[in-house]
Amino acid sequence: MTDSVPPFWSPRIAALEPYVPGEQPRIPGLVKLNTNENPYPPSPRALQAIARAAQEGLERYPDPASAALREAVCRRHALRPGEVFVGNGSDEVLAHAFFAFFQQPGQALLFPDVTYSFYKVYAQLYGIEPALMPVDAGLGIDVDALAARAAQGCAGIVVANPNAPTGIGLPLAAIERLLAAAPQRVVLVDEAYVDFGGESAVPLIARHPNLLVVHTLSKSRSLAGLRVGYAMGQAPLVEALDRVKNSFNSYPLDRLAEAGAIGALDDEAYFEHTRREVMDTREGLVLQLEDLGFDVLPSQANFLFARHPQHDAGELAAGLRARAVLVRHFRQPRIDAWLRISIGTRDQCGLLVQRLQEILA
Amino acid sequence: MTDSVPPFWSPRIAALEPYVPGEQPRIPGLVKLNTNENPYPPSPRALQAIARAAQEGLERYPDPASAALREAVCRRHALRPGEVFVGNGSDEVLAHAFFAFFQQPGQALLFPDVTYSFYKVYAQLYGIEPALMPVDAGLGIDVDALAARAAQGCAGIVVANPNAPTGIGLPLAAIERLLAAAPQRVVLVDEAYVDFGGESAVPLIARHPNLLVVHTLSKSRSLAGLRVGYAMGQAPLVEALDRVKNSFNSYPLDRLAEAGAIGALDDEAYFEHTRREVMDTREGLVLQLEDLGFDVLPSQANFLFARHPQHDAGELAAGLRARAVLVRHFRQPRIDAWLRISIGTRDQCGLLVQRLQEILA
Repeated sequence: MTDSVPPFWSPRIAALEPYVPGEQPRIPGLVKLNTNENPYPPSPRALQAIARAAQEGLERYPDPASAALREAVCRRHALRPGEVFVGNGSDEVLAHAFFAFFQQPGQALLFPDVTYSFYKVYAQLYGIEPALMPVDAGLGIDVDALAARAAQGCAGIVVANPNAPTGIGLPLAAIERLLAAAPQRVVLVDEAYVDFGGESAVPLIARHPNLLVVHTLSKSRSLAGLRVGYAMGQAPLVEALDRVKNSFNSYPLDRLAEAGAIGALDDEAYFEHTRREVMDTREGLVLQLEDLGFDVLPSQANFLFARHPQHDAGELAAGLRARAVLVRHFRQPRIDAWLRISIGTRDQCGLLVQRLQEILA
Repeated sequence: MTDSVPPFWSPRIAALEPYVPGEQPRIPGLVKLNTNENPYPPSPRALQAIARAAQEGLERYPDPASAALREAVCRRHALRPGEVFVGNGSDEVLAHAFFAFFQQPGQALLFPDVTYSFYKVYAQLYGIEPALMPVDAGLGIDVDALAARAAQGCAGIVVANPNAPTGIGLPLAAIERLLAAAPQRVVLVDEAYVDFGGESAVPLIARHPNLLVVHTLSKSRSLAGLRVGYAMGQAPLVEALDRVKNSFNSYPLDRLAEAGAIGALDDEAYFEHTRREVMDTREGLVLQLEDLGFDVLPSQANFLFARHPQHDAGELAAGLRARAVLVRHFRQPRIDAWLRISIGTRDQCGLLVQRLQEILA
């Protein structure tokens, strides 16, 4: 690319700063702890459902409304029909929500300065002014400041709960304060990681018309490779999302994704087993990292956020990479001393600790 | 929904008029000729690739760039790396193209008034002013008028070639006239149906930096249920699309869709066989419909556009539906006398003709 804007591009294209996902390299024997995937395979019921769906007419369009999947989400969360929207991964769901609710001319969208870095990318995509609210000294979301700022008027509020990349969770009382502080705007609670120990805001939906809760099957359902996410909220919010979706792509979920997602959502026993494994492994890893001298934030997610007082995070990440262990290091203000480490199997975490011991020795 | 705009919605949400896809009802024994699907199943190689991919780590994110699929498209069309963009169905690819190229403040996007009705929905979604250019008396695209209007300045040009729902194709010379008429703007040629007898503009890409050609695997590759489409153009156009994609959804294609698409694209023999079957069946159906008194437009697509001088199209569609045969009738100006009939198997088309004979008798 030259310095000048290429011809043909819309004026706003050149100004975009796209999101950069964690790398997906093909290194033999790689221990991949950099993109918060689940180390366990999906439920066998998901795989069976996919195999069946592949034989049942892939030459036909899917159901544009993905009604069967919406029903499965309703069952799982005890919601009513019309309170669920589904999309091609929670990233697409988030993008549509930004479009539907946060394009409020002259008002800023509030979210923490340390959070999922895609939020500011969506804001830029749709010309939404972001107001980044600093997290506190412990990297926790400053609910007081958010609520006070929201009360002055805003385009909406976005919080990830638990937050990424910190893993720190907010109690439901904090979510309720935000809902009350912006009663005319949507408060989007991104619960991508909630199944690993967080407190879900879904039970608040019945009482709060401005609450939208977003989930993904990429983490706790081991289906990052299938791209399914969903949003839950009162019917007018879901209707707005459907209007955007139906103006963008009639069929965002393919037949295999819908079938696999239903299979996974209906397998409660497998879900419980694997998420417990991840949480137990996490607690063990916290102790081992602390033994190695790391500071580790309290995590309700399937990752840890850790720093070592005597070692540069970028160098640690590079050292691990040289030993075929990937973790994520964000070269960003306030968090560049930290590493985000996804929770793998016990064996993978054991290998991580060994490699760190070698590097620190 | 009440008359007032629901709270929480962005101002533009209430004004959207979403696209309405053809219905996907579950009627036993249904002959479904309403959404231009392929009557034949996908290539066995596609299904094998899907089965393999399902066993290879669905808990992991896909390659965000879908590099292997882009390479398969390059092989198929003799393009260079960097000249292919892939997306979650050609609808998503089109949406990103509208965003990337046609948001040109103060200028109108040109497309025929009779064409794929999603184009005006995308325009509305992104606040692009559409200029609908009337088709001629034979429902053909008026290339003279388009070129003349483009020469006065425009945000770009979109043509479906062959056009939908007419099935009429343009020669490449016409595409070249449009490319020359708007040298500073993108000319998007939507070739969803080109494999059924149309002339592809892909060979023009090397000479025309403003040409973007969009294909889908939903029609000639029998994969409507898998949601894969792609765009081809010179590298700066693809880079613009990647910037939008990476600001919207890092991983629009799931692992199964990518694998299945590669399997289908690499099975040239199956592709040739099934598309020939569809074209042969189409030519037979044209004669049978003409025997029944229908006017049938010359089609280069996997559907026919036909009207009967003595019978109301809506009533014919309703009569067919009552007999478990679905065709598509658009209640729109200029084309409400016409039926769009997808080409099914020989047996399905035979049944359609029988049912029409009953209705017309």
